Amino acid sequence: MKIDVLSLFPEMFEGVFSSSILKKAKEKNAVSYNVVNFREHSSNKHQTVDDYPYGGGAGMVLTPQPVFDAVEHVTASTTSKPRVILMCPQGETFTQKKAEELADEEHLIFICGHYEGYDERIREHLVTDEISIGDYVLTGGELGAMVVIDSVVRLLPGVLGNEDSPVLDSFSSGLLEHPHYTRPREYKGMKVPDVLVSGNHKLIDEWRDKESLRRTFERRPDLLESAPLSKKQLQWLREWEEEAKE
Amino acid sequence: MKIDVLSLFPEMFEGVFSSSILKKAKEKNAVSYNVVNFREHSSNKHQTVDDYPYGGGAGMVLTPQPVFDAVEHVTASTTSKPRVILMCPQGETFTQKKAEELADEEHLIFICGHYEGYDERIREHLVTDEISIGDYVLTGGELGAMVVIDSVVRLLPGVLGNEDSPVLDSFSSGLLEHPHYTRPREYKGMKVPDVLVSGNHKLIDEWRDKESLRRTFERRPDLLESAPLSKKQLQWLREWEEEAKE
Repeated sequence: MKIDVLSLFPEMFEGVFSSSILKKAKEKNAVSYNVVNFREHSSNKHQTVDDYPYGGGAGMVLTPQPVFDAVEHVTASTTSKPRVILMCPQGETFTQKKAEELADEEHLIFICGHYEGYDERIREHLVTDEISIGDYVLTGGELGAMVVIDSVVRLLPGVLGNEDSPVLDSFSSGLLEHPHYTRPREYKGMKVPDVLVSGNHKLIDEWRDKESLRRTFERRPDLLESAPLSKKQLQWLREWEEEAKE
Repeated sequence: MKIDVLSLFPEMFEGVFSSSILKKAKEKNAVSYNVVNFREHSSNKHQTVDDYPYGGGAGMVLTPQPVFDAVEHVTASTTSKPRVILMCPQGETFTQKKAEELADEEHLIFICGHYEGYDERIREHLVTDEISIGDYVLTGGELGAMVVIDSVVRLLPGVLGNEDSPVLDSFSSGLLEHPHYTRPREYKGMKVPDVLVSGNHKLIDEWRDKESLRRTFERRPDLLESAPLSKKQLQWLREWEEEAKE
């Protein structure tokens, strides 16, 4: 996979692209990163990239020219059709399903604004996807792009070794993870539940299924609507719902 | 505000903390950052920080000792009560409201796991808040911590100058932003809507109110439930809802 990022703050990406899984993925040639400062593509002699909004108002708006030209530059040598992703609060909310969809692509281009709004012509004629990582205000699109890139790259074939795999992938089971414990068995008076050191794997599995369900029930009941549940889990759920009513 | 981050990948934060608003906020003494590699607080001679899960299963779990000791270390000289925030998929979903709440604090500590699960005793006895930035799987808590930190720090008094203010703050109006346009008036045949260059500010305001509402109606109808709407906006909404039914 080829990833291009258009940003006015390329230095923000250095530490992130050269650490952990994103670094390993590059070393394994599963992905290549290229961060372009689109200011360098401004045809304006002062290399400006934004201007006042038509119709007045506070703030600045990114002009189309540097962004269109930077995208043309990074697509000049590619034959595959890239996804051009605009990071913005108006975009669709990012999910694991979207990460899986993007992981099938050959070429992703991320456009990161910073403070500024985007000229609407960028959205309408250049962009294939608008993504928001959540309902909160960030200074720029850079952190959002990093989040999307991390979640996508770790899905590429061969990137995650066994040693990197999460203890349990909550989002694949549809429920939140059950509690985990490791050594020591007692730390500052806090103990590991007896069942986990019982050696009885049937009981351990049952405890985990139940605690995973309980945590989801208490914290994210919205996930229960689509999670596949065992008979036993449905029974626990009914019991808790009865208790909650009383 | 004092911000401590506990992470096994401190280098990930360098570019982000030394760019843009997070850098400016530090220069203005509105915030201080301190990234601690909690591996250095491991009392184990091999400086390990994780171990196999009790009860068996794949993956590793962060042991309590290095995390408890690292938190004790960063709170040794503080008198204020810190918020100790665990970045994890099981946490409450981060929102702008939560960012505003955290912006009132004096001291935030972020615990970032990486691949590993957290020993439950960390959650139960050390942590005050568990936060997830969205429903997608990330390799570690680092990117999530950066997202939370960016959204919080930009709310601190004096951090955002006028020049940095967003064109319009979607989340304060409760609606998504209307489209923006800047020069040139025509780019590659794509034109700015006439109303925005009409000079008629009443019409411009009306166009913006309408397009802001339209974008929210089309993309995020869930936001309409709590957004305060003008009489005119309610009327447009009814018209569109009627059209959608036909």
